[in-house]
Amino acid sequence: MGEGIQRSPNVVWHQSQVTRELREQQAGHRAAVLWFTGLSGAGKSTLAHAVEQRLHERGVRTYVIDGDNVRHGLCRDLGFGDADRVENIRRVAEVAGLFVQAGVLTLTAFISPFRRDRALARELLGADFIEIFCDTPLDVCEGRDVKGLYAKARAGEIPSFTGISSPYEAPDDAEIVVPTGSEPLADSVQRVMDWLIAKDLIQGDER
Amino acid sequence: MGEGIQRSPNVVWHQSQVTRELREQQAGHRAAVLWFTGLSGAGKSTLAHAVEQRLHERGVRTYVIDGDNVRHGLCRDLGFGDADRVENIRRVAEVAGLFVQAGVLTLTAFISPFRRDRALARELLGADFIEIFCDTPLDVCEGRDVKGLYAKARAGEIPSFTGISSPYEAPDDAEIVVPTGSEPLADSVQRVMDWLIAKDLIQGDER
Repeated sequence: MGEGIQRSPNVVWHQSQVTRELREQQAGHRAAVLWFTGLSGAGKSTLAHAVEQRLHERGVRTYVIDGDNVRHGLCRDLGFGDADRVENIRRVAEVAGLFVQAGVLTLTAFISPFRRDRALARELLGADFIEIFCDTPLDVCEGRDVKGLYAKARAGEIPSFTGISSPYEAPDDAEIVVPTGSEPLADSVQRVMDWLIAKDLIQGDER
Repeated sequence: MGEGIQRSPNVVWHQSQVTRELREQQAGHRAAVLWFTGLSGAGKSTLAHAVEQRLHERGVRTYVIDGDNVRHGLCRDLGFGDADRVENIRRVAEVAGLFVQAGVLTLTAFISPFRRDRALARELLGADFIEIFCDTPLDVCEGRDVKGLYAKARAGEIPSFTGISSPYEAPDDAEIVVPTGSEPLADSVQRVMDWLIAKDLIQGDER
């Protein structure tokens, strides 16, 4: 386990000389968590990765946490029961908090259907939590059905599938609401970028 | 949960446009995990933070994962039993792996006393795992006893305390061995920096 302030030969060293603030100064932007929520097929990962691409092109330090990189790793011990879903969201929020301390503008893409769980993430992350609601109507998501999951859920092959047999509790207070069901992707990306610039998380257009 | 490749209005977007390699290029250095291991009081956190300070001064993207930032967060549900200690190390290694993907030169400071657990971390992280053995003899650590833990352990107040009532299995194959019991901190820092430069993880001295 880590030690606190320590004595080494001839030196007393105080930890955490490199702070979040120093990292943000070095990076030239603020750190935060962009928490994308919405139904399966709403376009969370698509939008998150497209925003990341734009941010990266500006030199912003970014990382997307989604099912692809935690389901078989950090959260591999978790199933899909209620308790495990809460624990999944908790771990993602905690890890996102570490990334924020590291000065990274972090994006997460999880359905995170329950208000209570997103409230937990908001509580853990405080002002660093920026909720982005990918507001695609269920019928559009089901019409896309990119992975065939809705068809399986309708056939009763997937229990507790969000939107079909388990509720999606839409955010009341999302920082950004994106009409991902109707808006072209480029416009949605710009919407998020404009917000980040307006809030001084990143610098405005390069001149 | 995250979605794979998705269809959005008028656009097919492929994920992970921003790769680890692109982030490393942008950062101007490689990512890896410097895994500091050693007895309590050996100087792991001290050395890790001192190395981080030097790296930060060179513009390297860094982060130290240690007990201070995971014990009450990501790993708050874990105790000190054998299974929980293994799970603690597993989660730290998984999170360190995410940081590596994000292009961060990541430092971890945990006693991690068992070869088997460090082998698990090495297995998860592959060539990105760089083991740094803080080789301070037990009597020196106990002599320092910065936090009074050895005294408590000798008094039987702490069960399974590494070095006293639970073994520390020293690495056979650490990439870097640091005589943290006798060497001045500045020399230990330089030792690690020299290794990183020799292995081309970071650039040599600025000119």
